[in-house]
Amino acid sequence: MIDKLVEGIRRTRAPIVVGLDPQLNFIPEHIRDRAYGEFGETLEGAAAAILEFNKGIVDAVADLVPAVKPQSAMYEQFGVPGVRAYKETIDYCHEKGLVVIGDIKRGDIGSTSGAYAHGHLGTVQVGSHTYAPFDEDFCTVNPYLGSDGIRPFMDVCRECGKGIFVLVKTSNPSSGELQNRIAGDKALYEIVGQMVESWGSEISGHSGWSEIGAVVGATYPQTGKILRSVMPKNFILVPGYGAQGGKGKDLVHFFDSDGLGAIVNSSRGIIAAWQKDTYAEFGAAGYAQAARQAVLDMKQDITEALNR
Amino acid sequence: MIDKLVEGIRRTRAPIVVGLDPQLNFIPEHIRDRAYGEFGETLEGAAAAILEFNKGIVDAVADLVPAVKPQSAMYEQFGVPGVRAYKETIDYCHEKGLVVIGDIKRGDIGSTSGAYAHGHLGTVQVGSHTYAPFDEDFCTVNPYLGSDGIRPFMDVCRECGKGIFVLVKTSNPSSGELQNRIAGDKALYEIVGQMVESWGSEISGHSGWSEIGAVVGATYPQTGKILRSVMPKNFILVPGYGAQGGKGKDLVHFFDSDGLGAIVNSSRGIIAAWQKDTYAEFGAAGYAQAARQAVLDMKQDITEALNR
Repeated sequence: MIDKLVEGIRRTRAPIVVGLDPQLNFIPEHIRDRAYGEFGETLEGAAAAILEFNKGIVDAVADLVPAVKPQSAMYEQFGVPGVRAYKETIDYCHEKGLVVIGDIKRGDIGSTSGAYAHGHLGTVQVGSHTYAPFDEDFCTVNPYLGSDGIRPFMDVCRECGKGIFVLVKTSNPSSGELQNRIAGDKALYEIVGQMVESWGSEISGHSGWSEIGAVVGATYPQTGKILRSVMPKNFILVPGYGAQGGKGKDLVHFFDSDGLGAIVNSSRGIIAAWQKDTYAEFGAAGYAQAARQAVLDMKQDITEALNR
Repeated sequence: MIDKLVEGIRRTRAPIVVGLDPQLNFIPEHIRDRAYGEFGETLEGAAAAILEFNKGIVDAVADLVPAVKPQSAMYEQFGVPGVRAYKETIDYCHEKGLVVIGDIKRGDIGSTSGAYAHGHLGTVQVGSHTYAPFDEDFCTVNPYLGSDGIRPFMDVCRECGKGIFVLVKTSNPSSGELQNRIAGDKALYEIVGQMVESWGSEISGHSGWSEIGAVVGATYPQTGKILRSVMPKNFILVPGYGAQGGKGKDLVHFFDSDGLGAIVNSSRGIIAAWQKDTYAEFGAAGYAQAARQAVLDMKQDITEALNR
């Protein structure tokens, strides 16, 4: 799957993933009204509004970017109907040819970790039938439980040609509370980075990049520089651009000299662009076009930073 | 919510939580056949089989234990229908008066962590209506992202009278890869234990126990002893009993001198007891009664160990 992502980045010249993290207050009133009109002010209504909102965004950006990253929390908070909207979002993005990174940050052990892996990336067997329940292309995984949590995902990645991104250094202010602890002569994030490199060396695509990548926040550029060298063949998924404070110039160290090796996420900065002064001209009716313009601006910011 | 759990443990004299982690091969054929007959060999069929299986177990053990712990992975692997079975299992357990610990091991940051917290423990607003989408009483949370991941859960716990168990030292063989790293003069699990103690001191029940507990595996009894003293007012949820190798005598250090402070989980050892030689007499038709007997045996094992 990493080869498909690399090909998509080359084709679009945009190492960008659009984070589909809809909050109800990002969704224009006309979309919410229509959904509530049909389903009431219910969990089903919220889910319908989210799905329609997402489709508009996806239609507007699908030719510009290789990938999207729906954040499962934003769907799961609306219960079973929300989870259905998560699945329908994945399917819609696949129809549009996009690589889907499920931002699920799951982490468990043994057969339980295997159940998450099969449900999200692989298949399950019911009697004599086989199903791919969620069918993301990649998902994010939490490493706190060690190899027992990662290996079942690796098995499914091998079997089904999928990939994962392991949390290494997250973008949030308190990420250092555990991740920056010095153990021996290294910060914990560097130890996890080495584990990712080691796991990743077992599963590589034809491009030479591994199916096992890492999450490293844009908000810690110096850490990104260290981790880029610790994990030379592992893609880095970079959250924290835009709303969380990361800028194009912070990103250069996450890429290799060919401008590959990283894919930068922006969620709110794109999907809620219409609510920002910069894109106010688009209005609520033009929320999807505002998202498109925000992607183009982000692409320019990153391209300029990489060309410098 | 911790007070309700403490009251339940006192009433049943069983510091036991039954792990509802159904795998299809734990489910007697007659239940699977009935579900597949109605829904086909589909995700819906799998979900229906799981729900009926769970109901049988819950009916058989509800008077013996204070709590159950459904493991979200085992439901999520069957997609949207599986997630619906998860929700219906929670509701059924509530009808029977059980405390429900959602073993979801979520962990994210800021508004995303808040979305998980609201969806699982709290409420969400859709227009002028309020819903409690999953409505577990407790859930498990991963600490790798630091306070930014925990505080949104704490806010919801305060608001809605719920609680969480933070992963501190997990029961699996590779848990030490990160959790046992020495940072400064302490193992990482001890650092996380201190954080749990500190977070927990902000939210306590009338019983004096905190709404913020910890997960510490039965497979590491000496670690349990250390963490019991680091977190004197935080309940410990103890996985790893039974199938993973933990025994009653390993558990004594997890409890305080009143026999409180810990609740021990067994999943497969109870729900799949009918497949073990010890309980073979019950047969497939008696799977729920086999589970009941396994709970009684576990209760005796723990009681004897605590009385010694």
